Amino acid sequence: MASGSPTANIDDLHGMYIDDLTTGMTGVFGKTITEADVTLFAGISGDTNPIHLNHEFATASRFKGPVAHGMLTAGLISAVIATRLPGPGAVYLSQILRFTAPVRVGETVCARATITDIDRAKQRVRLATVCQVGETVVIDGEALIWVPARN
Amino acid sequence: MASGSPTANIDDLHGMYIDDLTTGMTGVFGKTITEADVTLFAGISGDTNPIHLNHEFATASRFKGPVAHGMLTAGLISAVIATRLPGPGAVYLSQILRFTAPVRVGETVCARATITDIDRAKQRVRLATVCQVGETVVIDGEALIWVPARN
Amino acid sequence: MASGSPTANIDDLHGMYIDDLTTGMTGVFGKTITEADVTLFAGISGDTNPIHLNHEFATASRFKGPVAHGMLTAGLISAVIATRLPGPGAVYLSQILRFTAPVRVGETVCARATITDIDRAKQRVRLATVCQVGETVVIDGEALIWVPARN
Amino acid sequence: MASGSPTANIDDLHGMYIDDLTTGMTGVFGKTITEADVTLFAGISGDTNPIHLNHEFATASRFKGPVAHGMLTAGLISAVIATRLPGPGAVYLSQILRFTAPVRVGETVCARATITDIDRAKQRVRLATVCQVGETVVIDGEALIWVPARN
Repeated sequence: MASGSPTANIDDLHGMYIDDLTTGMTGVFGKTITEADVTLFAGISGDTNPIHLNHEFATASRFKGPVAHGMLTAGLISAVIATRLPGPGAVYLSQILRFTAPVRVGETVCARATITDIDRAKQRVRLATVCQVGETVVIDGEALIWVPARN
Repeated sequence: MASGSPTANIDDLHGMYIDDLTTGMTGVFGKTITEADVTLFAGISGDTNPIHLNHEFATASRFKGPVAHGMLTAGLISAVIATRLPGPGAVYLSQILRFTAPVRVGETVCARATITDIDRAKQRVRLATVCQVGETVVIDGEALIWVPARN
Repeated sequence: MASGSPTANIDDLHGMYIDDLTTGMTGVFGKTITEADVTLFAGISGDTNPIHLNHEFATASRFKGPVAHGMLTAGLISAVIATRLPGPGAVYLSQILRFTAPVRVGETVCARATITDIDRAKQRVRLATVCQVGETVVIDGEALIWVPARN
Repeated sequence: MASGSPTANIDDLHGMYIDDLTTGMTGVFGKTITEADVTLFAGISGDTNPIHLNHEFATASRFKGPVAHGMLTAGLISAVIATRLPGPGAVYLSQILRFTAPVRVGETVCARATITDIDRAKQRVRLATVCQVGETVVIDGEALIWVPARN
């Protein structure tokens, strides 16, 4: 929340600082994966796999129907870290992704990031990152980020 | 590759099988990351980080200007695996991503996947996955995929 | 409307002038609000409200399902004024929007602008602006625009 | 921030309640308006005004170059209310928009919403809504929203 200064300030957009973080803190972001999402992700990534775009091919596959790109679903982890915990200012260092179940078009994915470890000297924060559709884990993994310190 | 039958066939869309693969094989996909890509990825992922969308915030940051979402660039790895090596039919099991340098809007990313290990019993293939802008590595990591066998 | 000159002319693109307008004139524009529209509007505006993007959140809400961004629907009023009445050349001075009912994905919105008042000295035109889905008014309000005079 | 429950919960996505709000509170969202934004807004709204899309027409106009759709810029107000203050759960009742200066492609808009009045009985909150490019006010106006109460 901004402090109420009359002029727009870049600091108003900044997220949490390393000083604000403790292990166990959790951030959540969820959205439904739509056909538009899949089409647009194909266009911007170049991943035109028929498992996503060709309903006949997908129906004949082991998934029995079209599924979303795993990396599209992984984008929701990026959204949690970039907008909730810790928010703008953090720098993504690495991400491990294990794709444990398919996400079908129309399903709602909840991405959750929970701080598991903080290295205050190096300003590095480790988060457990899990995406679920209902009770089913669809992506499991962890993120490592660098978080700015308050001056 | 299509076999020349007059009618479209689902098998024609299939990529390589585990039998076709050997270590050292490489696939490549490249594209330019545009402003439109960044806007669209923000919409489909929910990641509205000002480092991507707000040029003033980004210019004041350590990156000195707007950068693309790391997970958007990672989408090009997904494109290589899904469309080149081994192509449709493979199943993404896991991906490790190390974000080693920023990608700026207008830069052209080349994603390359090289087979490093094949477990023919489990039908699992490991690939070194690297994204570069010119000589600069922007993402380094590895993918693990399951690949179908020919009947 | 083009005059028939073989070369494209900027004047051919101009809409009506203040001299052409009388109270009671009406312009209409309608389109269906699709899932793609909602995704794209989220990306360009930064409005990632789960009431639009998360079907589970939306279904549990008072709206019982996902709805379009109000400002996306309001864009159709802008379309009427900019392309129909009076068309290119007019300058948007102000708009009052009352959001009276939700618009669901897949619904077709009809936006209608009707001239209610003309100040020929100041070249200002007031329009009643209404968006409907069938018989239901979803946005009610008024626009004030400046319209060029013929030389 | 979520409470740390192991399962994703819709309440985790909810914004502030009427009980949390006081006059003077401010929320901010800013982004750069890109060519992609203008193109996409034209597509989703149907507002194909050449002042936005035709650089020759725009250069010959009083604005001396292409400008963004006013309603696109207004979308950033929607983003502030829907994601910052008070965030998800609020319902947009009305918005007054005065377009006081053009926004050119490439300019960074900061949208700010400040609570000016709270009717706790009716759960209605009034906000002053201002969009600026640097020190220049480009949209001035006010929003009226309904905000849920904590049970």
